[in-house]
Amino acid sequence: MTDIAMIEAAAARGAGHVRRTPLLSSPFLDEIAGRRVFVKPECLQHTGSFKFRGGWSAVSALDEATRTRGVIAYSSGNHAQGVARAAQVFGIPAVIVMPADAPALKIANTRALGAEVVLYDRAAGEDRDAIGAGLAEARGLTLIKPFDNAQVIAGQGTTGLEIAEQAAEAGVTAADVLVCCGGGGLTSGIALALEARAPGLRARPVEPEGFDDVARSLASGRIETNTGPAVGIFDAIITPSPGQITFPILHRLCGPGLVVTEAQAKAAMRAAFTRLKIVLEPGGAVALAAALYQPEAVTGDAVIAVASGGNVDADLFARILSEGED
Amino acid sequence: MTDIAMIEAAAARGAGHVRRTPLLSSPFLDEIAGRRVFVKPECLQHTGSFKFRGGWSAVSALDEATRTRGVIAYSSGNHAQGVARAAQVFGIPAVIVMPADAPALKIANTRALGAEVVLYDRAAGEDRDAIGAGLAEARGLTLIKPFDNAQVIAGQGTTGLEIAEQAAEAGVTAADVLVCCGGGGLTSGIALALEARAPGLRARPVEPEGFDDVARSLASGRIETNTGPAVGIFDAIITPSPGQITFPILHRLCGPGLVVTEAQAKAAMRAAFTRLKIVLEPGGAVALAAALYQPEAVTGDAVIAVASGGNVDADLFARILSEGED
Repeated sequence: MTDIAMIEAAAARGAGHVRRTPLLSSPFLDEIAGRRVFVKPECLQHTGSFKFRGGWSAVSALDEATRTRGVIAYSSGNHAQGVARAAQVFGIPAVIVMPADAPALKIANTRALGAEVVLYDRAAGEDRDAIGAGLAEARGLTLIKPFDNAQVIAGQGTTGLEIAEQAAEAGVTAADVLVCCGGGGLTSGIALALEARAPGLRARPVEPEGFDDVARSLASGRIETNTGPAVGIFDAIITPSPGQITFPILHRLCGPGLVVTEAQAKAAMRAAFTRLKIVLEPGGAVALAAALYQPEAVTGDAVIAVASGGNVDADLFARILSEGED
Repeated sequence: MTDIAMIEAAAARGAGHVRRTPLLSSPFLDEIAGRRVFVKPECLQHTGSFKFRGGWSAVSALDEATRTRGVIAYSSGNHAQGVARAAQVFGIPAVIVMPADAPALKIANTRALGAEVVLYDRAAGEDRDAIGAGLAEARGLTLIKPFDNAQVIAGQGTTGLEIAEQAAEAGVTAADVLVCCGGGGLTSGIALALEARAPGLRARPVEPEGFDDVARSLASGRIETNTGPAVGIFDAIITPSPGQITFPILHRLCGPGLVVTEAQAKAAMRAAFTRLKIVLEPGGAVALAAALYQPEAVTGDAVIAVASGGNVDADLFARILSEGED
């Protein structure tokens, strides 16, 4: 079970490898929100998202004999790249199981990070878990789950340690910390770090409309599931439900979830471009969207938004930029 | 005359105000360049460019009675915003003299940072210097020049102090440090900081084709001037010649200048988008362009590129993104 000692240990293992991202701000964003806005840009993390923190934590926590045999992950997105890069730096094998219809660029990027990509055919009903389990068994690979893994949560929690320090430096001791939330690994890790190191800061998950399983789960007190198909621009964070490990942490520590519209997320991407000079993917912009465009749902005279990732195709980004009139 | 003590003093005055930008990298950029590439993203600095460092340094260096009367600058671009924001934080008046045909957005942004914008008509032959001198005299304002000012150079030099520390942390003790260069304030400040704190690192100015006054001046040993009109996408860095104060520093300390094509600068903007998740303006991308696409002109097994700013309009950025096939 992840605790502050595990998060501190993950931070120690990550020193010199995991990037300490800055805490950004702009008077123009403050004006939109009506309070001070701070942004933690994990798009600047290695591989373009916070997922490298969890990947590095999990890989570095393995004993050497186990690690040397290699790791395996199921992912077509940011978790794949985070695990692949961590394995590449350690010089160990990484197998990433991806659907055959994943974007060619994502497959190419994952391979370029040294991973062996194993494709499976979703349409033909091939079973990802069975393929992965067979490979893991045959080669002695360790499975790194994307969020329901104590060491992954500890790695994501190092973001929270940095936020606690950087908020104190900025004179912020009480604020909502809005976190882009899929399965809850980042949100639960940050919540645990803040509980121990900055108890005046409260983590709150943010999700896109139609994929608000975490907000509903927090409201009902039990794990709820999204009903619609997982399609659209929020691919990074549209897991069907919070995890078995992450949900109890979220339930114990987080404030109510927030839900933003697609239009708000796109406007936040444009604001981040114009005012902070950072690139956010749609799923990585939902927390900033809530901070900017739902000020009535936030408490306090400052707010911190975690921008979780920036892996967005150039054509989609250009299209969203050109949709703005600001 | 700027020296390391002045740069250290500027850094001390900037603590808690000037942002310490990270040093970014990506294995994908390393592969393009054939060596390790590190990027110092000053686009993440307050106001979106390194100019805030110089503005803050110059304003904070004034004695209080002088500072309280206010400051004045001539600029339609990044220097205007850097000085305006520094004055805003100090709560003192800032007058920015801009051409009446400057982009409306730049005028609006400068006003939103609390500055009084005084417009002059270039076409009608109005004399910017005469207008500014009259205002300065009448109100007791202090003129902050964009590069030929010892405290401005000291402020830009704080970038070099950070590079010296961050390069050492990354294990880099000998490398070319490529710097986007207009009048030479940033390049000369960094060169002075590196001379004292990281003598194995060598500053080298980078300019766009057609605006290579600094490269030619370094080659000839005297101040050369651009002949063509100062138009196009590189507006941030197309000053006509190096400064009277900056050139002797550049001449004493810098390696040969590099010159990149517009196509290379645009490709570097796309690479920074895709691999680092940062927004660069064309003038802010020329150093990275040289690092990536002119590897034969660089020495050593690592290179550091200073990305000087990210103030680019959304429509131009979207157009440059869509020109790429990568």
